[in-house]
Amino acid sequence: MKEWIIRENGFGQEKTALLGNRYLIGNGLIGIRGTLEEAEKDSLPAINLAGIYDRVSGWREPINLPNGCYSYLRVDGECFRLPEADPVIHEISLDYRHGIFHRHTVFKTLRGQIELTTERFASMDDPYLYAMQFSIQADFHADMELVTGIDGDVWDLNGPHLEEMKFFGTDESMIVTCKTHESAILIEEAEKIATSFNLETRLLEKDKKMLHRIFFVTLPGEIYTVSKAVAIHVGDKTKNTNIRNAAAHVDQALSLGYEELRSRHIKKWEELWLHCEVDIDGDDEAMEALNYSLYHLNSIAPRHTDSLSIPARGLSGQTYKGAVFWDTEMFMLDFFLMTDPATARALLRYRVDTLGGALTKAKDYGFEGAFYAWESQEGGYDACSDYNVTDVFTGRPMRTFFKDKQVHISSAVVYGIMKYVDWTGDRDFLDEKAIRTVIECARFYYSLLCKRVNKDVYEIWDVIGPDEYHERVNNNYYTNRRAKFVFESAIRVIDMADIKKNEDSDVRWPNDFDVKKLKEQFTDAINHLYIPLPAEQADQKHANVIEQFDGYFNLEDCSLEKVRGRLLHEKEYWGGAYGVATHTQIIKQADVVTALNLFPEDASKEVLRANFRYYEPRTEHGSSLSAGMYSMLACKINEPDWAYPFFMKSAKADLMDGGKEWAGLVYIGGTHPGGSGCSIYDSNSWGLQEYV
Amino acid sequence: MKEWIIRENGFGQEKTALLGNRYLIGNGLIGIRGTLEEAEKDSLPAINLAGIYDRVSGWREPINLPNGCYSYLRVDGECFRLPEADPVIHEISLDYRHGIFHRHTVFKTLRGQIELTTERFASMDDPYLYAMQFSIQADFHADMELVTGIDGDVWDLNGPHLEEMKFFGTDESMIVTCKTHESAILIEEAEKIATSFNLETRLLEKDKKMLHRIFFVTLPGEIYTVSKAVAIHVGDKTKNTNIRNAAAHVDQALSLGYEELRSRHIKKWEELWLHCEVDIDGDDEAMEALNYSLYHLNSIAPRHTDSLSIPARGLSGQTYKGAVFWDTEMFMLDFFLMTDPATARALLRYRVDTLGGALTKAKDYGFEGAFYAWESQEGGYDACSDYNVTDVFTGRPMRTFFKDKQVHISSAVVYGIMKYVDWTGDRDFLDEKAIRTVIECARFYYSLLCKRVNKDVYEIWDVIGPDEYHERVNNNYYTNRRAKFVFESAIRVIDMADIKKNEDSDVRWPNDFDVKKLKEQFTDAINHLYIPLPAEQADQKHANVIEQFDGYFNLEDCSLEKVRGRLLHEKEYWGGAYGVATHTQIIKQADVVTALNLFPEDASKEVLRANFRYYEPRTEHGSSLSAGMYSMLACKINEPDWAYPFFMKSAKADLMDGGKEWAGLVYIGGTHPGGSGCSIYDSNSWGLQEYV
Repeated sequence: MKEWIIRENGFGQEKTALLGNRYLIGNGLIGIRGTLEEAEKDSLPAINLAGIYDRVSGWREPINLPNGCYSYLRVDGECFRLPEADPVIHEISLDYRHGIFHRHTVFKTLRGQIELTTERFASMDDPYLYAMQFSIQADFHADMELVTGIDGDVWDLNGPHLEEMKFFGTDESMIVTCKTHESAILIEEAEKIATSFNLETRLLEKDKKMLHRIFFVTLPGEIYTVSKAVAIHVGDKTKNTNIRNAAAHVDQALSLGYEELRSRHIKKWEELWLHCEVDIDGDDEAMEALNYSLYHLNSIAPRHTDSLSIPARGLSGQTYKGAVFWDTEMFMLDFFLMTDPATARALLRYRVDTLGGALTKAKDYGFEGAFYAWESQEGGYDACSDYNVTDVFTGRPMRTFFKDKQVHISSAVVYGIMKYVDWTGDRDFLDEKAIRTVIECARFYYSLLCKRVNKDVYEIWDVIGPDEYHERVNNNYYTNRRAKFVFESAIRVIDMADIKKNEDSDVRWPNDFDVKKLKEQFTDAINHLYIPLPAEQADQKHANVIEQFDGYFNLEDCSLEKVRGRLLHEKEYWGGAYGVATHTQIIKQADVVTALNLFPEDASKEVLRANFRYYEPRTEHGSSLSAGMYSMLACKINEPDWAYPFFMKSAKADLMDGGKEWAGLVYIGGTHPGGSGCSIYDSNSWGLQEYV
Repeated sequence: MKEWIIRENGFGQEKTALLGNRYLIGNGLIGIRGTLEEAEKDSLPAINLAGIYDRVSGWREPINLPNGCYSYLRVDGECFRLPEADPVIHEISLDYRHGIFHRHTVFKTLRGQIELTTERFASMDDPYLYAMQFSIQADFHADMELVTGIDGDVWDLNGPHLEEMKFFGTDESMIVTCKTHESAILIEEAEKIATSFNLETRLLEKDKKMLHRIFFVTLPGEIYTVSKAVAIHVGDKTKNTNIRNAAAHVDQALSLGYEELRSRHIKKWEELWLHCEVDIDGDDEAMEALNYSLYHLNSIAPRHTDSLSIPARGLSGQTYKGAVFWDTEMFMLDFFLMTDPATARALLRYRVDTLGGALTKAKDYGFEGAFYAWESQEGGYDACSDYNVTDVFTGRPMRTFFKDKQVHISSAVVYGIMKYVDWTGDRDFLDEKAIRTVIECARFYYSLLCKRVNKDVYEIWDVIGPDEYHERVNNNYYTNRRAKFVFESAIRVIDMADIKKNEDSDVRWPNDFDVKKLKEQFTDAINHLYIPLPAEQADQKHANVIEQFDGYFNLEDCSLEKVRGRLLHEKEYWGGAYGVATHTQIIKQADVVTALNLFPEDASKEVLRANFRYYEPRTEHGSSLSAGMYSMLACKINEPDWAYPFFMKSAKADLMDGGKEWAGLVYIGGTHPGGSGCSIYDSNSWGLQEYV
């Protein structure tokens, strides 16, 4: 029996950041953090918008919209809002079957008790719309004032992004218009209210807010309901354009009535669950955690467009610059492939459409082909900084090589495309540009290959694998094996395109490709590329283990506890040149193990087992993408007891406390859709299906 | 008119470390620091021994011998020694024509004045002998006690190295025997005193010292003279064996009388100056600085053996582990080539004889051929640590790559050998082992070559050039150009050996070399090796400048002052992964400029000039080897005004205050024979000869 609901009783300001993520609602275009209506900047409220980025003083991130949920209550002239007021009862809950956020709060005044109930949703039926409803009740004749409108004083990590903000209002509606700082993209939001009773309103504009003041006197025990809807209009610099005027949009929507908007929204969610609801007999906890994970993935799927991807922190805010990482192809794609191929297609179309950025990046680094952005923003621009970590001892930025050296990113793109085509059979996806994408990725890896003049083997040097604690290593197993896969894939798409060319004379090779020569080169690369093999004649300790990179086994082999014990500062970085993990075998996350999950046919069961046993105790699991990989590998070697705790860790990534929400004074929290994706992935693994 | 003397008036304990270096005497086997006779550990006295190393708790360094100079004066029962006593007059001086250290001190007692004059020398005639003389005078009937003997409580950076120390004494002589910690090499020192007057002696042994207490009463104005000699015997684990018994040795020596020992010593020095004395008209300062530099080189030349090299800090102590760096071949060799070819031969023979260590090192790193030690100790063992720098912010050792990546060291060895053979015409030097040395170095560079699979050029990646502030760079101009030279040299020695083979049927190729194939490989390497060229079509700023390594021009280009201003701690390291210089174009020392000095025929005068002008303002000159290189290049472009200050900086490296004597609490001082060598080098440059 599923509850489909999570609840949080009581109020604590210190949990607002965390709950903002856990109670997130979204529809793929916007994500609305699970904060209260009265939340101002220090409570991190946000209506995060997908796909539009803005740069202020060197830092580009997605924008948060003016907050149309902003509201609070005044009774007999006194404000009742959190955290200032002290509630008698307070609860928030999330109906994660339907993406509806609820709030219920009871206050006591000198004259009696008042009860505030709200709900809101980001319409799954109309991605440019969100709506909410207030229900207010008192046990006395209260002089009630509901203040609601749009708060333009937007919380940003590195803003402000919205300029020339202007408000226009009437008694029952208002519009805010503004432009983004960098590209002057027009943003418009229109709000409209509807009530079922007589009232008097006044309009107030101050502190970058425009607010309706709605006055009425309550009859004891009677419930007063106010509904509102907000429509978004994003200017034409983006594909996500809503061509209707926002004011007309919200008029038309609200003319249907709040209940109708709500039921259309619910209907869409019910349709989604038809394809993905999970049932598990005998393990309600796992079942609910899984469905909750699916809820998050569904909430951020870009269904409103045919070409957009999902940021690493979904639509929960501006953390990680709202950029798209390898997480999408590696850890989220499978869910959409299985339940919603159109969304999967949009995710990969985004990569094909941002090939230009990848070509530019490769060229900038002196390589050929397509080197995809480690942190992809509009157009495939790489938002990744050369300095991603701050040295806690000196306060200086530390040069990191994530952007330059994590070359495995392009293989994730090819992996996604090939998996989509193979799974769906949608060969039409492989148009000229998609084929070019695969080939350009292969050309990138080909240009990375080097050989010692005195040897006859091709190597890949100076990279970072998934384990970011060891920078600038040679012959990372994961990277080399993935490069081989990309060469194989390029040959496959060339062959497939040959077939298509015969069928359809409109398909032409781009005349800058000599396909025959490319096939020869890629075949030669496959034949000569060095892929580290499991240690065969090794000592007992290393038998069957694949070395993560050249020289890894020579690093100090000591326990995680010992390495942790060397920290001089709780927040110091474990990696980089001098981190506590750097010169040891302690790794951040699954690396060889991830590769073995992708290419299990490469290895015997003994090898899979040996690598699990060797690497797991040496893994810090410092990434939410790590546990799922160990879980999957454990399933492959028929060890569900090993798999289950890692699976649950993935599935509950956003349900458990204790995540990293802050790095010093910088907010780094958000949802973990990659972890959510992993859990789905896991639950499909053979061993675990038996188990749960 | 030359003075041949340097003097220091007055006493200050804070200068003892510095003066210990500046007033050093030596004879190639031992170096005796210019400290006072009464100096104990905290004044850093040392009788440093060449060629014998000892490891205690992981750190190997040369040993300091028991101190046979140890002496002090007691008058009327009261000690008169510095720093405790307060002298009326105090002066030390060094006769650097003859390597004789002098001390003159006048003390006042309650009863009158006493005068102590001493001198000492490390015999240039007998490297296993050092001798000293005391002259004592008082203006009253003083109860005088001269305490003199051997202090076995030796100052060490990382000792103690000497174990099982035993003393044996008689009224006029004593012996100390001990063994080194690591290899139990026997060390024996015998001391003997001689006086010209009647006295009474007692023997005292305490605190690891054995001392003669020599009692006598002075007649006012009369001078009392005590002489002593100390002979060294080093056990048979080393080639530097003195097979005579030390006691017999010192007996025999002193039987000749102190004056005879002294005049034999002086005679040898005079013979040396016949070959190297410098005369400069019109610049006494330069002339004296140059002769003082030559003094230091002569004092540390290993004339007692046919196979030994000179450590980077000469015989001034244990700093830099007493190891041999590239300094010898690059910066000291020329002086010996021009004045003392036998010593030059011994320096290079040392490299040939330590080929085994270089082969092992190459193999350990996965390469072929000979990778010479960055810090060479006995047998070519590389004493360089993986952690050469301490992070001042965390106190942690920082991983540095000097040992792993400074691959240009092997080219210095080949350079030295080829220069020796070409300069002296001594082709006999090129025996099988010397030829093998050159070829193995070429094989090493050949095994370093890599090529992009999609390019037809050979590159050398992941190295450190002379500029140590930029680690792990690709295609360092200096390194690549030197590698080319090594390939050329290997072909030359193969061809020379062919000639020899025809002449002398005893010369056989080692049967593990396929000479024909090697010649083909090295020729191919020469033809394909990427050598960065001067920027031709560049902007004005970079026109004719050779880029130090791939991407150097893309680094932040800011002033030395700006970079220095970013220091958060006076002693923090400028290089490594996150140093203030690392991500800028600020370099530690001449790099491209050093290469241009070695291969001036590669470049036009415009190119030489452009590189001087570009790199000099960007050079911190953090190494004593830097100034000389700029000086030489300035001469090549006929700019003696630019050259002169750099030349003087080199020539006065050990005469000027302000050098780096301490790194935190660690003593890193010593003499700078590389700087001394540079100055000789410079003074031979055409432009400067005109100038000075």
